[in-house]
Amino acid sequence: MNYTALFEQIKKKKSFLCVGLDSDIAKIPAHLQQVADPVFEFNKAVIDATAGVTIAYKPNIAFYESRGVEGWQSLEKTVTYIRQQYPEIFLIADAKRGDIGNTSQMYAKAFLETLNFDAITVAPYMGEDSVTPFLQYPEKWVILLALTSNKGAFDFQFREDKGVKLYEAVLRKSQEWGDKQNMMYVVGATKAEMLGGIRDIVPDHFLLVPGVGAQGGSLQEVAKYGMNSHCGLIVNSSRGIIFADKTEQFAVRAGEEARKLQGEMEILLKEKGIL
Amino acid sequence: MNYTALFEQIKKKKSFLCVGLDSDIAKIPAHLQQVADPVFEFNKAVIDATAGVTIAYKPNIAFYESRGVEGWQSLEKTVTYIRQQYPEIFLIADAKRGDIGNTSQMYAKAFLETLNFDAITVAPYMGEDSVTPFLQYPEKWVILLALTSNKGAFDFQFREDKGVKLYEAVLRKSQEWGDKQNMMYVVGATKAEMLGGIRDIVPDHFLLVPGVGAQGGSLQEVAKYGMNSHCGLIVNSSRGIIFADKTEQFAVRAGEEARKLQGEMEILLKEKGIL
Repeated sequence: MNYTALFEQIKKKKSFLCVGLDSDIAKIPAHLQQVADPVFEFNKAVIDATAGVTIAYKPNIAFYESRGVEGWQSLEKTVTYIRQQYPEIFLIADAKRGDIGNTSQMYAKAFLETLNFDAITVAPYMGEDSVTPFLQYPEKWVILLALTSNKGAFDFQFREDKGVKLYEAVLRKSQEWGDKQNMMYVVGATKAEMLGGIRDIVPDHFLLVPGVGAQGGSLQEVAKYGMNSHCGLIVNSSRGIIFADKTEQFAVRAGEEARKLQGEMEILLKEKGIL
Repeated sequence: MNYTALFEQIKKKKSFLCVGLDSDIAKIPAHLQQVADPVFEFNKAVIDATAGVTIAYKPNIAFYESRGVEGWQSLEKTVTYIRQQYPEIFLIADAKRGDIGNTSQMYAKAFLETLNFDAITVAPYMGEDSVTPFLQYPEKWVILLALTSNKGAFDFQFREDKGVKLYEAVLRKSQEWGDKQNMMYVVGATKAEMLGGIRDIVPDHFLLVPGVGAQGGSLQEVAKYGMNSHCGLIVNSSRGIIFADKTEQFAVRAGEEARKLQGEMEILLKEKGIL
């Protein structure tokens, strides 16, 4: 999917919501535990309940990989289901991969070809040749970790060399590898006040913003500092939507939570003059 | 496996060789392409030919993941085979994972529990809570990326804050999270001259050293600057062993290449007074 198509979808759905399919099998409602593939059935119900107000789904690969071959099958089925039923939706593999060049090529193949995701999150620690293999696929995206939402972000990401913090160096240096048409950045909602400085470096790029909801980030703050004239934001919520309820009503409640966020997003898009 | 058992194996086999099972299906000999699981059969033959002189195997997960469910099955079979036939061998998942705490827990489960690896490589960019979940398993190990062997290592790993380079900060800071009994570091052989400075920070830890052979690093240089009184080195070779020959003789040649390296390692261990 290209930049224009993504922006069109945001305007059409009046939303910049990404639903994180962090579908931990241990947290799935009891009544689903007896079916053949509980994780897929859970995802399917959540997807059907939220697709109307969602522009992107983001399975975090760890929750699938932890179950070995079975988990990988649940992931494949989930991707295929979304592709068939909701082909307009942007699909992000939250994999945080990154290895030497010939190995990153293999990860690119795994997620952008075998599984046909639109985008993959990538860790920048190993530099250029660990990132560029993912940029060889037309209309596919790298979403590079810049400033993450967790506490450990403070261990290394804020280290300064000649006044430039590591996450700022990642934003700057990676401009040499890709552009706003094939690269986005992860910026945690828990550090929304830093979005202003980030927008000075990458005014036009999309930012994938996790941490709204369960992790405590504020949607209004994120929009205030991070929204640009093409929205430029994909805000993710995972647990706050998919595990809002753990009874047979889980999908109904997931839909409600997603629509609540979409409603807030519609107001913010209008305030910005995008709608 | 604990520190002592690993050192005992090094002395017994007179080797600190790790064979990287980067088993790219496109590079596997033609005569194996017709069997049910070419990658597993290839691995099995390489393992049988090299296990006598090898202390560790390190499948790079990308080469398996790129084939989806089938690749994951090849990986599971490979791990099971090594566990059954060569239970003394140290098993490293070269996965370079790392995510927020609850997600890293899932990756830890995937590799240290579901697949029962002894160790997993982890990327440090996201800091403490992305690393510590892997340290909760007794006698299992985190192998943290410090100074990698690729060209892109120069993009961020050498950035200096108050005279301390990023990879040095990773070595220092991570001392607060684990110790020589559960943490190792990746240090590329292509930067062997920096091993002296690294040993000043982590004198007793094991270092996993990729980059000997195909990537151009020298075993003698690595031993000169990096070996300590408990060896403290696990030196990996991947392509130089497993793809030394692409005919029906591939396993025989893999064994020869592994024994050649083991012979050089035996001399180095004797020079150090370890044997």
